Amino acid sequence: MTSQALGFSLNSVIASETVQVCELPLSLVLLSQDATYPWLMLVPRRPDIAELADLSRHEREMLMEEIVQASTALKEVTGCDKINVATFGNMVAQLHCHVIARFHVDAAWPKPVWGIAPPRPYETAARDALLTKLRQKLAAA
Amino acid sequence: MTSQALGFSLNSVIASETVQVCELPLSLVLLSQDATYPWLMLVPRRPDIAELADLSRHEREMLMEEIVQASTALKEVTGCDKINVATFGNMVAQLHCHVIARFHVDAAWPKPVWGIAPPRPYETAARDALLTKLRQKLAAA
Repeated sequence: MTSQALGFSLNSVIASETVQVCELPLSLVLLSQDATYPWLMLVPRRPDIAELADLSRHEREMLMEEIVQASTALKEVTGCDKINVATFGNMVAQLHCHVIARFHVDAAWPKPVWGIAPPRPYETAARDALLTKLRQKLAAA
Repeated sequence: MTSQALGFSLNSVIASETVQVCELPLSLVLLSQDATYPWLMLVPRRPDIAELADLSRHEREMLMEEIVQASTALKEVTGCDKINVATFGNMVAQLHCHVIARFHVDAAWPKPVWGIAPPRPYETAARDALLTKLRQKLAAA
């Protein structure tokens, strides 16, 4: 069953700010185009979901395990000091979960990342190398 | 089995910034003393846990369901427009999960709450009324 067949389509704002890493059983895994922090987003491929409570219990269990898979892959690939996980949906209603690699020396540490540093684009080679490593880790998970 | 018997003790910074709402099977549920936003924190009663990945799969499923119970109670009691959920642990390592009621008219909307408005204390009667309602909802969940 394709994403389209489920009635799901990725919000255009999220799509414009990310590139796709891979698909996990429930979620699209996306990489933020902001190179300031290695930053994944997980978007459950279900239509009309805004809150965690809108998912079924089984889907929530899947999402939690996919958050942990994404966290573990991000930590192994980047060697970060901490993982930050958040879901807000204040600006884009479609449920999306941020999984962010944090370093003691990053632009916002120890604060949350929002509103601190302006987005900075990746160099293409660096972004592609990161995508390759993340895909390998997530495929092995 | 008491929290103490499990080797768990609540971090002193979290304790100083919250009051206890109740205990769920895995987590302590705490109310932030900052009246700017109705704001719960869930702290799994397990020692030495910093990341979601440090919990067992079963404990993560419990935490996810307790986040949804806390979210639902908070939404019903406050009539908020959106629930924000986050776990950072950059300043306090002990795993704690923020569950925050957001309103289209609150001090930070639509941004995340951190670093926007200085903490504002509750009036005791208002805080106690909120605690009573939250305890009733969470006991019924």
